[in-house]
Amino acid sequence: MNIILLDPKNALGDGRYGLTLRQQSHISTVIKAKQGDVLRVGLLNGKIGEGVYQPPVENQAGYIHALTLFSSPPKPLPMILVMALPRPNMLKRTLQNITAMGVKHLYLIHSAKVEKSYWQSPVLQTESIQQCLLEGLEQAKDTVMPNWSLIPRFRPFVEDQLPDLLQGKVGLLAHPYLAKSCPVDIQEPCVLALGPEGGWNEFEIEKWLEAGMQSVHLGERILKVETVVPVLLSRLYPA
Amino acid sequence: MNIILLDPKNALGDGRYGLTLRQQSHISTVIKAKQGDVLRVGLLNGKIGEGVYQPPVENQAGYIHALTLFSSPPKPLPMILVMALPRPNMLKRTLQNITAMGVKHLYLIHSAKVEKSYWQSPVLQTESIQQCLLEGLEQAKDTVMPNWSLIPRFRPFVEDQLPDLLQGKVGLLAHPYLAKSCPVDIQEPCVLALGPEGGWNEFEIEKWLEAGMQSVHLGERILKVETVVPVLLSRLYPA
Repeated sequence: MNIILLDPKNALGDGRYGLTLRQQSHISTVIKAKQGDVLRVGLLNGKIGEGVYQPPVENQAGYIHALTLFSSPPKPLPMILVMALPRPNMLKRTLQNITAMGVKHLYLIHSAKVEKSYWQSPVLQTESIQQCLLEGLEQAKDTVMPNWSLIPRFRPFVEDQLPDLLQGKVGLLAHPYLAKSCPVDIQEPCVLALGPEGGWNEFEIEKWLEAGMQSVHLGERILKVETVVPVLLSRLYPA
Repeated sequence: MNIILLDPKNALGDGRYGLTLRQQSHISTVIKAKQGDVLRVGLLNGKIGEGVYQPPVENQAGYIHALTLFSSPPKPLPMILVMALPRPNMLKRTLQNITAMGVKHLYLIHSAKVEKSYWQSPVLQTESIQQCLLEGLEQAKDTVMPNWSLIPRFRPFVEDQLPDLLQGKVGLLAHPYLAKSCPVDIQEPCVLALGPEGGWNEFEIEKWLEAGMQSVHLGERILKVETVVPVLLSRLYPA
């Protein structure tokens, strides 16, 4: 946790903000802050700066007050990420890492090679996803919560929603075995579609291409999802 | 396992190669290959191609034979990675992932902010490290085993070994808070030094800079090691 993200919903009045249990625990046991210490804080979806810590006293919970917020959060990546649902034990880390890298628009989509059981995972509950995204923001010292949607049905998304999303953007379909090498430093917004570990099937690839996506590969090496995502994002937007 | 890597030490004569238990298990339960099936294989530190599978029969273990090896392994990254020892539960994945990306020269080095206990981890035993590197090769369809060394003492390495390693290469010290932005697509060999999660301390930074390393950062976002490594490597060598 590299920043304490304060939720306006936890405002206590008089410029004071309440802390979640996780935050209180981190402040007490990791930062070991004392009364009056100045901590790095940010307002969720707002600016970054400093605040003064008031530890818990008797019945009163700890809080942050006297905020001065002066910095903007880091630049977001100008892209929409459409990603086949990873398996549950990869999903948490994946959500944290793509958020830390600056993705603000995420669709988790079904694919033929995604096990149906993944969609039942408790990690997909709203609070659980929000928590992963929050942890990504706290890691990267960002404040802006990504938007996200679950897309359990592939075809209606690609046929009905994708064309609108592609307006004014280049569409890139990451797939290991197709012709063109993934461009470097594209300097424009994109929609990036990332398949499951087994790859998109033929029907899905046809649908993506019909919608106007171009297929790109990352070379001969087959990388795991946890590596592919940072590689792709930093290749498209290195700056 | 995207390729079966055959070890010349397991050659049985007559062009036959024995399989490890892991390989036999993967071939039986994941690939579900039958007698005579053609599998993608590679020779450790050699070429890539195909071989014919002979399943286990009674007392005789399974093997691969009739190899045709026609492709070279993927290009390596022209770099030496010097990395502060990650914590044990990150180390396995980190070794696999940097191998999958093509790192062939690795030093795992001590830093003030590396817990001494990490050096006692069983993951650091030779067979364990070799196994992680092998799994990285199998993931990426590579055959060339990286060279690696454990460097439990920082100072002698930086003072005595590093100057030689830096001959004909640019030295880059990845550190979140120093001036220059990490270059993109450097088109030359490098020595890349990656610090522990808390960063190098002042003494260590001075030693790196004295030896001729230049400090570079990746921008405002603080990323976890598992993300920083692929980001850095693909930024330096995107092609």
